[in-house]
Amino acid sequence: MPRDVMKISISAATYRSVVVITCSSFLAAVLWGAVFRENMSGYSIAAALGFWALLASSFLIHNSYQNGKINSLRNFAEKQEFEIRWKNLMLDNTDEMFIVLNMYGQIVTFNQTFENLMGLPRSDLQGKPLRAVFMNEVYEENSNLSYVLLDRLRDVFLGKETLFTYSIRFKGTDRVVSINLSMRPVCNKGELQNILVSGRAVHSDRIVMKNLVGEAGRYCMDNNISDLYQLSHRLTRNLERWLPRAQIYLLQMALQEVLTNAVEHGNLEVDYDMKTELQQRKGNYWDILIKECNKDYLAARKVHISYSLDEEKVVYVVKDEGCGFEWRKYLEQEEEAGEGAFVRTFHGIGLQLVKNVFELSFGQNGSEITMVKYFQEHRHSA
Amino acid sequence: MPRDVMKISISAATYRSVVVITCSSFLAAVLWGAVFRENMSGYSIAAALGFWALLASSFLIHNSYQNGKINSLRNFAEKQEFEIRWKNLMLDNTDEMFIVLNMYGQIVTFNQTFENLMGLPRSDLQGKPLRAVFMNEVYEENSNLSYVLLDRLRDVFLGKETLFTYSIRFKGTDRVVSINLSMRPVCNKGELQNILVSGRAVHSDRIVMKNLVGEAGRYCMDNNISDLYQLSHRLTRNLERWLPRAQIYLLQMALQEVLTNAVEHGNLEVDYDMKTELQQRKGNYWDILIKECNKDYLAARKVHISYSLDEEKVVYVVKDEGCGFEWRKYLEQEEEAGEGAFVRTFHGIGLQLVKNVFELSFGQNGSEITMVKYFQEHRHSA
Repeated sequence: MPRDVMKISISAATYRSVVVITCSSFLAAVLWGAVFRENMSGYSIAAALGFWALLASSFLIHNSYQNGKINSLRNFAEKQEFEIRWKNLMLDNTDEMFIVLNMYGQIVTFNQTFENLMGLPRSDLQGKPLRAVFMNEVYEENSNLSYVLLDRLRDVFLGKETLFTYSIRFKGTDRVVSINLSMRPVCNKGELQNILVSGRAVHSDRIVMKNLVGEAGRYCMDNNISDLYQLSHRLTRNLERWLPRAQIYLLQMALQEVLTNAVEHGNLEVDYDMKTELQQRKGNYWDILIKECNKDYLAARKVHISYSLDEEKVVYVVKDEGCGFEWRKYLEQEEEAGEGAFVRTFHGIGLQLVKNVFELSFGQNGSEITMVKYFQEHRHSA
Repeated sequence: MPRDVMKISISAATYRSVVVITCSSFLAAVLWGAVFRENMSGYSIAAALGFWALLASSFLIHNSYQNGKINSLRNFAEKQEFEIRWKNLMLDNTDEMFIVLNMYGQIVTFNQTFENLMGLPRSDLQGKPLRAVFMNEVYEENSNLSYVLLDRLRDVFLGKETLFTYSIRFKGTDRVVSINLSMRPVCNKGELQNILVSGRAVHSDRIVMKNLVGEAGRYCMDNNISDLYQLSHRLTRNLERWLPRAQIYLLQMALQEVLTNAVEHGNLEVDYDMKTELQQRKGNYWDILIKECNKDYLAARKVHISYSLDEEKVVYVVKDEGCGFEWRKYLEQEEEAGEGAFVRTFHGIGLQLVKNVFELSFGQNGSEITMVKYFQEHRHSA
């Protein structure tokens, strides 16, 4: 509370009445005492009157003190109300969603944008752990994402700011929202007090939706999983004019799979045994992978991505600087052994997804993969 | 103020003391009266005591009422303070700048992001008209921008939401900030009360700065000046790795000039006399131009833009569907007559700028212009 709330002003009128009442009461008491000098009860009455005068004065002073307090508190509250009104105006009229978590990861407050984005009533969000909100029955389950979120939350609890992209797929609809999230620890005297989460849906804007005819881009990326994930969202965000969102989501996942493969099995030459060993360690597999394997001459290797989009198709070419990753072996393995071996190798989400989504071709001894998706079936009007 | 502030609860203890004091006082008075039955002053004292008891009770009740009021106000203010703390946390930790204007266009409140972006102290912003802030001596004067801002403010005062891009160039530095601004009228009972301004600096992000090798895009645009302005910012935002910002700003202006020419003199076939006539009318020239000339078969004409960026250069090709705009005539005019005639024709900012910034070549009878900017001189490290 600011100190000025406690400042009390007693009005001149109150002062005057206190003085007048006190003086006149005492005068009356003294006169009474003088007239009935011989009569003790006269003195009693004078004393009673004097006491009454004191009481009345103290009452008036106290009352004035309290009124002052009430007025200044009321003014303060009114000022704050204005401030809150402006702040709500700003917070609720933006594309950016804001969430404040307490130190247990529970939602303390958020803005309207978050509510709208999640499609859930306020009461389903307030006080809930963020993870529980994202794992809500409204959305399709995705254990991979849950893992990412938990992992990033762990980073924030350790005091690190973290940026990542998170996709939510709404059950029974083709609505998919990719959100660029940032989580920032808010500390007081070195202790984590709150976590500020802010985010913004990744989507193509009006000019892209209406006017883009085609685009292309080339990127040269380090062995950085989080950057590659972000790139996968960037390189799929302008497809909305040509593909339904649920499809875009699949393309995203497939692209992520290929990009992480390029780092893991391509540039960093991790084989099945190595992967199994690393996965048994405590912590996030990808963090451990980069920490253990992104060293020396391997760390200088790049992932080269080229992307092009036109009215007919989208094409991604991903090339790593590894010795050639044995795609064929894995593909054959799958065909021979059925899903079992394959799924075990890639731990759930794998090359299969990529094959279902894109037309694939390989070059450079397997270190270059070209993925093409034609739009003819799903052509959307602008 | 919420109603619950006025709800007063008198505690049980207060009630009890009021009752005890009142009863015991009256009891004392009655006893006194009974003992000194013959003595009139006994009754006087009893009356005084009774009066005192009443006074004390009313004082206690009133005091308790006021204490209740103070407590509930204090709780309310504390709740508000928490709310403000969270809201500040959200508002001051975002890339988005927020400004609330009153109905006279003066700044009522804003967030930290706006303060940081403008590089001005809080006191230089609070209470000032937004226009005065943008026309501050810290920035270079740009009459064109001032005009755009006034124009968009006029739209908002008329109750229309408006989106535009605004570039600020800081004096004596090469700092240029392009901001995508949105202005939204906030009405109460049909009357404009406030204007919410929000904006976000247009710049390339980390992945682009670090990893982009090259990109390209093709756009097919309507005769819409505001969309073309926005596109000019989009098509220059990823140059930061290759050019200093002051240069990017010049490229932006030159691109805007060519794009508006494509609409004005290309697609809508406005000649010098027509332009002079339209400019003499009241209102924004570009609004009048679109309203008067973007009709019938002319309205269906497009502006085709292709953009490509690589390590060496950036290339823009702008093509309109007009009968061929007489670039040569204007260029010759300039060379013959010096700046005078040329500047008059293009009203200050013209083709001259474009020639100074880009290497130009023309095709399609003048309806296609190719602009190339090589980086070798100003190559920036990533």
